[in-house]
Amino acid sequence: MSPTAGQVIKCRAAVAWEAGKPLVIEEVEVAPPQANEVRLKILFTALCRTDVHFWEAKGQTPLFPRIFGHEAGGIVESVGEGVTELQPGDHVLPVFTGECGECLHCKSEESNMCDLLRINTDRGTMIIDGKTRFSKNGQPIYHFVGTSTFSEYTVVHTGCVAKINPAAPLDKVCILSCGICTGLGATLNVAKPKKGSSVAIFGLGAVGLAAAEGARLAGAARIIGVDLHSSRFEEAKKFGVSEFVNPKDHEKPVQEVIAEMTDGGVDRSVECTGSIQAMISAFECVHDGWGVAVLVGVPNKDDAFKTHPMNFLNERTLKGTFYGNYKPRTDLPSVVEKYLNKELELEKFITHSVSFSEINKAFDYMLKGQSIRCIIRMEE
Amino acid sequence: MSPTAGQVIKCRAAVAWEAGKPLVIEEVEVAPPQANEVRLKILFTALCRTDVHFWEAKGQTPLFPRIFGHEAGGIVESVGEGVTELQPGDHVLPVFTGECGECLHCKSEESNMCDLLRINTDRGTMIIDGKTRFSKNGQPIYHFVGTSTFSEYTVVHTGCVAKINPAAPLDKVCILSCGICTGLGATLNVAKPKKGSSVAIFGLGAVGLAAAEGARLAGAARIIGVDLHSSRFEEAKKFGVSEFVNPKDHEKPVQEVIAEMTDGGVDRSVECTGSIQAMISAFECVHDGWGVAVLVGVPNKDDAFKTHPMNFLNERTLKGTFYGNYKPRTDLPSVVEKYLNKELELEKFITHSVSFSEINKAFDYMLKGQSIRCIIRMEE
Ligand SMILES: [Zn+2]
Ligand SMILES: [Zn+2]
Ligand SMILES: [Zn+2]
Ligand SMILES: [Zn+2]
Repeated sequence: MSPTAGQVIKCRAAVAWEAGKPLVIEEVEVAPPQANEVRLKILFTALCRTDVHFWEAKGQTPLFPRIFGHEAGGIVESVGEGVTELQPGDHVLPVFTGECGECLHCKSEESNMCDLLRINTDRGTMIIDGKTRFSKNGQPIYHFVGTSTFSEYTVVHTGCVAKINPAAPLDKVCILSCGICTGLGATLNVAKPKKGSSVAIFGLGAVGLAAAEGARLAGAARIIGVDLHSSRFEEAKKFGVSEFVNPKDHEKPVQEVIAEMTDGGVDRSVECTGSIQAMISAFECVHDGWGVAVLVGVPNKDDAFKTHPMNFLNERTLKGTFYGNYKPRTDLPSVVEKYLNKELELEKFITHSVSFSEINKAFDYMLKGQSIRCIIRMEE
Repeated sequence: MSPTAGQVIKCRAAVAWEAGKPLVIEEVEVAPPQANEVRLKILFTALCRTDVHFWEAKGQTPLFPRIFGHEAGGIVESVGEGVTELQPGDHVLPVFTGECGECLHCKSEESNMCDLLRINTDRGTMIIDGKTRFSKNGQPIYHFVGTSTFSEYTVVHTGCVAKINPAAPLDKVCILSCGICTGLGATLNVAKPKKGSSVAIFGLGAVGLAAAEGARLAGAARIIGVDLHSSRFEEAKKFGVSEFVNPKDHEKPVQEVIAEMTDGGVDRSVECTGSIQAMISAFECVHDGWGVAVLVGVPNKDDAFKTHPMNFLNERTLKGTFYGNYKPRTDLPSVVEKYLNKELELEKFITHSVSFSEINKAFDYMLKGQSIRCIIRMEE
């Protein structure tokens, strides 16, 4: 048992006091975990675009002060009452969406959209008592998607914690908490390309590159990257992308360009931008008879997906996915094993690394489009 | 070898001389089959809505005189040059769409949309030489979808002929040539409901009832029929439909009504009307996390399928199907076996039967909405 178990821990956290303002490293108090919760010592965390989106808080109801962060690797420091599936010292990845194990979704083989612990970006408190575990001088500090990993210690619901092989280096596998699994699973679990097939990937950011990595692992013969920024094409080659299309270079719709390149369409496509036009193109560029398109990118609130229904009747399939259809607790350990077996390559996603006190640099790299993933080292 | 092999056969056919005018039983000449063709003696045929649609020819380029008919059972009379897979005496079902066995679609496990023999409603001739095999007093009479079964003899491409167990009664299994397989396969091959699951069927015509029959065979626990005509509900019970919703009886959209009935949505839905609003409802009424909606009904040319993309991202799937994804030659024999094993019930689809000379009565029954299937007996 940890000497700090049951005690309030004082530690450093990067607090967002206001929307869009640089984070401030503060000493905060982290309360002990309650029933069904664990307290984690975070060793490495990474910045994802979703953190930036809710930090900017444009068009949102602001919820500050708040501790962001949801891609991370850490070690269980202590466990709350009744927790048996985890114990101090376990190596874990916290995840922004959970797996209660009891609801219809958790019991379904097909779904990972847990009724109890499904992602909630509006809630800034723990689900058990509606309170925060973070405070500074008595002022509560809000949580973010139940993880808040931009803190040396954080409290997380056990359903949102994947226990992994302790042999895995946490400074690498921490990026599996969100974006990389989202793209990888979209291809491996949902699009399921066959060996030798063709796959189009729309959007070559971190998620799209992870989708390409999935296509590479599946043995796709052609991986066609689609992006409005031609500068991304060179980097994408490392992820197996073999051909590139910039829609801006063509007069005709990109789905027609791809259909011409592939004798009628690709076998699979994965849409990782969230742009409604890209979604429509990603669907319409798959081959009739067997093509499957998978939507990953999150659309605007008012978008409408629109296509002629004959595109479906000609035996095309359109599916969406959330977190690559991975169930966090059940499935993440096996993704970590894929990395340990040298099947899945994670190093190429990690373009930058900063110490915790430099966390605002990670925001700069992302905002300037320089990074795929920037690792933040909690121990200086 | 048949004594008529290689000869022109004179026989009776129901000729449509003009759009929407009653068919006329005429003596016509049927030329011998060419290479890759067979000539069939039709014993039983049935009327499908597609025959009526092209006979009415509204908004179409008219192609008359024409011999309609595409659901039938018959016996091979003679075969053209080089035909080895069929021989005189074989019991067969002609099908409006074919399987060449050589194209990418035929080689794909997933597709039945043969490049060479895919349905073509505009072509009134045989694919091999662009000529008709039917004539009267030297005037060519056009074919319909390569089958033209409203004739005592017809010529069909071998790729459009399924050889079946001769023990099967042709007056029953003839209805597998089109509508029944379309609905049955949409459920069994594409929607694939699990035992104990819930399935919504939109449209309770022949195709929808066949989709319900598929759900019954799959062991669905709840089969919810949706139709604008409440009078169809009673008949539908025979096909396993256990609950009924008439969208006209509700203020709120039918997808919301179904979601309330099923704690968030059905596991599977099958859309058999072709109405764009029904397509949208069929998609939006499936459960998030695992729901699959299948489109069967053929839309209008200008329709647009429209939904919010979050409906996909919440892990719903939308697929379309053509002829229930059955490959005619490869798969139809096993559907016939399902009937012979008393698994699949065909009798309940057959509401009427007329002799060939009364064929216009079959049109009346369908136009008045009285029949599911009317069998037309070629031998009086
Ligand atoms: Zn759950
Ligand atoms: Zn993320
Ligand atoms: Zn073919
Ligand atoms: Zn038909």
